Amino acid sequence: MDNKALYSLSYGVFMVGTRSKDVKNGCITNTCMQVANNPTRVAISVINTNYTCYLIKESGMFTLSMLDNTVSFETIRHFGFQSGRDVNKLESLPLPEDDNGIPYMGWSACAMLSGKVLDSIDLGSHTMFIAEVTDAKVLSSNPPLTYADYQNHVKPKPQKVDEQKKIKGWKCKICGFIYEGEQLPADYLCPICGHGPEDFEPVYE
Amino acid sequence: MDNKALYSLSYGVFMVGTRSKDVKNGCITNTCMQVANNPTRVAISVINTNYTCYLIKESGMFTLSMLDNTVSFETIRHFGFQSGRDVNKLESLPLPEDDNGIPYMGWSACAMLSGKVLDSIDLGSHTMFIAEVTDAKVLSSNPPLTYADYQNHVKPKPQKVDEQKKIKGWKCKICGFIYEGEQLPADYLCPICGHGPEDFEPVYE
Repeated sequence: MDNKALYSLSYGVFMVGTRSKDVKNGCITNTCMQVANNPTRVAISVINTNYTCYLIKESGMFTLSMLDNTVSFETIRHFGFQSGRDVNKLESLPLPEDDNGIPYMGWSACAMLSGKVLDSIDLGSHTMFIAEVTDAKVLSSNPPLTYADYQNHVKPKPQKVDEQKKIKGWKCKICGFIYEGEQLPADYLCPICGHGPEDFEPVYE
Repeated sequence: MDNKALYSLSYGVFMVGTRSKDVKNGCITNTCMQVANNPTRVAISVINTNYTCYLIKESGMFTLSMLDNTVSFETIRHFGFQSGRDVNKLESLPLPEDDNGIPYMGWSACAMLSGKVLDSIDLGSHTMFIAEVTDAKVLSSNPPLTYADYQNHVKPKPQKVDEQKKIKGWKCKICGFIYEGEQLPADYLCPICGHGPEDFEPVYE
């Protein structure tokens, strides 16, 4: 079985907004699809250890903003590369809110929807939420950013390094966790965010 | 609520292959995402009235071929615009098969996976299947076709018609069903395949 085959599934890039009581948060995901109509329902899958997953389970509500091709890497880093457990991401970047007081993207997004969770399925590494779409807005006419566009055009390219330098560890590009050791095991999964070796970069001496 | 917002979700275009006993079939869908890892699992959503949905429920297995940007409209029409209830689609277009004897695309696909259904959720219009990926292959280095690419570059543009001509009905471009009447209701759903007004084209007198 060649896991690289799964890389050919096409995805968008989304900001998932959440609120539970006074806590508001936003994170970046790439999985959302419409799964039924009449009424319209979508499914999203969120890593179980993510704060967003916890907040959706608590409140049963979220927003999903479909990022467009004007988004900067800084915006994706702000929402995607730090945890709402450590940082209030909305404090320095206030966002508009839907009718439930849940933040959504006020820029660099072509559309948004509000979801009310109908069912959640725990899949071990992730929880899949099936949600009725209770509101949806077109925000701009810019084309949506695909995950392939993000990988090819938005995400910074790894910098070339001196091949003489010795690797002393591997850093998870998603959450920042450091694995100490020269060789990252091929089946390694980040203990913080669950991502695999393709999302680690070397740390040099 | 503006349903057009949902058009900004990004999808691929897939051929779903099925087999139950001696019956083999293939159809076109646009919904598949990886929902969990370790083991790798995907979710697909299939219209309940489709023959493919019935065959997956019977056998608990399917293949999913990720179509690439070399695919022709004729291939999509062959698998997507007729039902396996009426036509044996594999008779005139034999395909390779996975270890379970289920057909997958031998051309115009960049990757394929074999799925074993773990759970199915009936959502009224569609059934969502959650499946463990039991095999996966890279088939070519061509980029995957996105659903936006299909709409903009593969699907034929509607032909301009004489504005004097009177509309006598509306034809579903997905399954061929004819709605008789000059005006298609804005919330109309095809009784055969469940698609909405955006997938109907006028039939002139």
